[in-house]
Amino acid sequence: MNDMRKTVADLHAELVRYNLVVWTAGNVSGRVPGEDLFVIKPSGVSYDELTPENMVVCDLDGNLVEGEHAPSSDTAAHAYVYRNMPEVGGVVHTHSTYASAWAARGEAVPCVLTAMADEFGGEIPVGPFALIGDDSIGQGIVETLKGHRSKAVLMQNHGVFSIGKDAKAAVKAAVMCEDVARTVHVARQLGDPLPIAQADIDSLYDRYQNVYGQRSPR
Amino acid sequence: MNDMRKTVADLHAELVRYNLVVWTAGNVSGRVPGEDLFVIKPSGVSYDELTPENMVVCDLDGNLVEGEHAPSSDTAAHAYVYRNMPEVGGVVHTHSTYASAWAARGEAVPCVLTAMADEFGGEIPVGPFALIGDDSIGQGIVETLKGHRSKAVLMQNHGVFSIGKDAKAAVKAAVMCEDVARTVHVARQLGDPLPIAQADIDSLYDRYQNVYGQRSPR
Amino acid sequence: MNDMRKTVADLHAELVRYNLVVWTAGNVSGRVPGEDLFVIKPSGVSYDELTPENMVVCDLDGNLVEGEHAPSSDTAAHAYVYRNMPEVGGVVHTHSTYASAWAARGEAVPCVLTAMADEFGGEIPVGPFALIGDDSIGQGIVETLKGHRSKAVLMQNHGVFSIGKDAKAAVKAAVMCEDVARTVHVARQLGDPLPIAQADIDSLYDRYQNVYGQRSPR
Amino acid sequence: MNDMRKTVADLHAELVRYNLVVWTAGNVSGRVPGEDLFVIKPSGVSYDELTPENMVVCDLDGNLVEGEHAPSSDTAAHAYVYRNMPEVGGVVHTHSTYASAWAARGEAVPCVLTAMADEFGGEIPVGPFALIGDDSIGQGIVETLKGHRSKAVLMQNHGVFSIGKDAKAAVKAAVMCEDVARTVHVARQLGDPLPIAQADIDSLYDRYQNVYGQRSPR
Repeated sequence: MNDMRKTVADLHAELVRYNLVVWTAGNVSGRVPGEDLFVIKPSGVSYDELTPENMVVCDLDGNLVEGEHAPSSDTAAHAYVYRNMPEVGGVVHTHSTYASAWAARGEAVPCVLTAMADEFGGEIPVGPFALIGDDSIGQGIVETLKGHRSKAVLMQNHGVFSIGKDAKAAVKAAVMCEDVARTVHVARQLGDPLPIAQADIDSLYDRYQNVYGQRSPR
Repeated sequence: MNDMRKTVADLHAELVRYNLVVWTAGNVSGRVPGEDLFVIKPSGVSYDELTPENMVVCDLDGNLVEGEHAPSSDTAAHAYVYRNMPEVGGVVHTHSTYASAWAARGEAVPCVLTAMADEFGGEIPVGPFALIGDDSIGQGIVETLKGHRSKAVLMQNHGVFSIGKDAKAAVKAAVMCEDVARTVHVARQLGDPLPIAQADIDSLYDRYQNVYGQRSPR
Repeated sequence: MNDMRKTVADLHAELVRYNLVVWTAGNVSGRVPGEDLFVIKPSGVSYDELTPENMVVCDLDGNLVEGEHAPSSDTAAHAYVYRNMPEVGGVVHTHSTYASAWAARGEAVPCVLTAMADEFGGEIPVGPFALIGDDSIGQGIVETLKGHRSKAVLMQNHGVFSIGKDAKAAVKAAVMCEDVARTVHVARQLGDPLPIAQADIDSLYDRYQNVYGQRSPR
Repeated sequence: MNDMRKTVADLHAELVRYNLVVWTAGNVSGRVPGEDLFVIKPSGVSYDELTPENMVVCDLDGNLVEGEHAPSSDTAAHAYVYRNMPEVGGVVHTHSTYASAWAARGEAVPCVLTAMADEFGGEIPVGPFALIGDDSIGQGIVETLKGHRSKAVLMQNHGVFSIGKDAKAAVKAAVMCEDVARTVHVARQLGDPLPIAQADIDSLYDRYQNVYGQRSPR
């Protein structure tokens, strides 16, 4: 539990480093291994002030289990994902600029970069417009991402939710989502990006999921 | 008073952090609780050199009351706001890029992001063109923001003034204003953002003003 | 002399801070008071490695007078300005992105922001295309800026040269030039910025040159 | 060998400094002088964690010779370049935003800036679409850059590969490639950049290759 508190607290620094968030508008959570719990950012606390100690712990219904602060106002969406996607170990939410701009138009980011094929296996899809306050956002995330290769969804008029096998993988998806959303935006500003054949997308995705990175990092 | 000097001096670092200002072109002020005074940035002093000690104190007519430097050249506008909007405890002025670009076209930022509905309750409005040197700028700010949900105004061909219940809230509004001005700009570059229904904007605004953040932060 | 070495070395940090330069592609110089000399950046040395000691001193023909490194490859242009504009105490050259983009189109930045009226008194003009290697660049700068309110010129297909009463003022002009070039670019991307009446530009310029900042900074 | 490990490890900081990379998506390599070996980034290791010790050494077929981590997944492309371009001492790969946007459209960056003429001697060309996994990417790089003045190639739908006489020169080419790709992009957003005459491009390139920088840096 304390490990997960530290992991989640520290990972918020990546959101800051890559300019995915301003003020307090973005959050990371991580499922506690072997328990029906997750660790998430406290609401309204600035990124500079996050510590393992002030992270909060919630159950999979989003109820506060441990912590002196209220959990993130997006906790219900995180909880819904954990309840309905048991393979997910981490969830990230941001309003990163370029991804949110695609979301504001309700337009998926087309897969015209090999890095997108690697990480997302195709386009980054759009999820429905949904209001905060009940399970609508969580449902929209799960409906869109279940069975989809993409680990990120652009929630219409809102921002990005990304998922991963753990919190770090979800943060990586959030970082890559903004990076490719920006590059494809810039490409589109001066014309039409060239398409990548579906077979090539499939081949890149398959290779990246199975080959990339350190087999036994130390 | 010394608390407010420190608060105001420190908050300028947020303008720098979020790239809302260059050189010395932006300023924060905070009303001194229980007195007809406010603390404001000295004119022409760089952000690196701001300290609680070199902040200046003015009365609500903008006259220098305490301090070795001249007050910000925007002091008259801050003072006018404090005189005419007693509920305001902080004022911020920037020329942040995207907000100023909307201001240069005299165009309000439309509310097409849930984060805008949360923070601004609708569009960010445009105020009149006004010259520095008398109360014109202050009047333009107050006329535009009085009775408006938005805590920020885009002064035509000029830049942003934002207000808040205290200096920190005004800085937050300045940060969010640039963030949403940028995202909506980017969205508009490749098409038309989808509208958000007025009832949904109202619902988001109401919830955010009443529910978000820590009830009793420590 | 040693003061000017330190001033010029330190001011390069402002070019880095405001992202006006990459690698070694930009330089600051300052006239040595009371002497026909100026201090300038050494050629091909990275900004991290600049010290008062490795700055170089040139005469007004651009000949190396003091220093272990070769002077900046732009030294001839700086020297030409100092020879022909005795009121100039500092010169800055950058390839900052937005200003250079206007320069690539050979298009002046129109004065549609009050901050432009303040600092530049109108548009930022374009200078001629000129090759490095003789006095062509210097002549283009001087012909464009002599008698012009603007302290910055966009050299066609090249970048920015800015001048000032001292090196710090020239750096400020370079910083403000990029800032307004970017804001006006962004404004123009989605439509036409509103014009500012010439009388208002004149009034803003006059006030800013005479009133702004600390009368007796300490 | 240890020198080259340190050089290559340290140069990755320049990719970070100039925002050419996110997460682990970019790499630098350097040929070991006098040996058929090169030093390259380990795969999937973050830039913060790079040290001389965790760099890996490969032979010119891309086989791991020394190191506890797997080499970068782009190692085959680096190796192909070293095998086929003996004059090359360094290779860099990035997905930097603006360059990759031109690459997504399969469009060369036209030479409309003197800084491009200096560094690249003309346009920055596009290389073919190629899948990772065999020598396709390496072949595309070599076919495009052999006999070309440009030290950088925009691999279609992918990103940038740059080369140099050593690793530092290749990093400089990667930095300058993104800088000019961005400036020309921004210029093109509001109209057509003015062309530079071929004779002027030739003259600038010749001068820069032969005159610029310190003859005997210390």
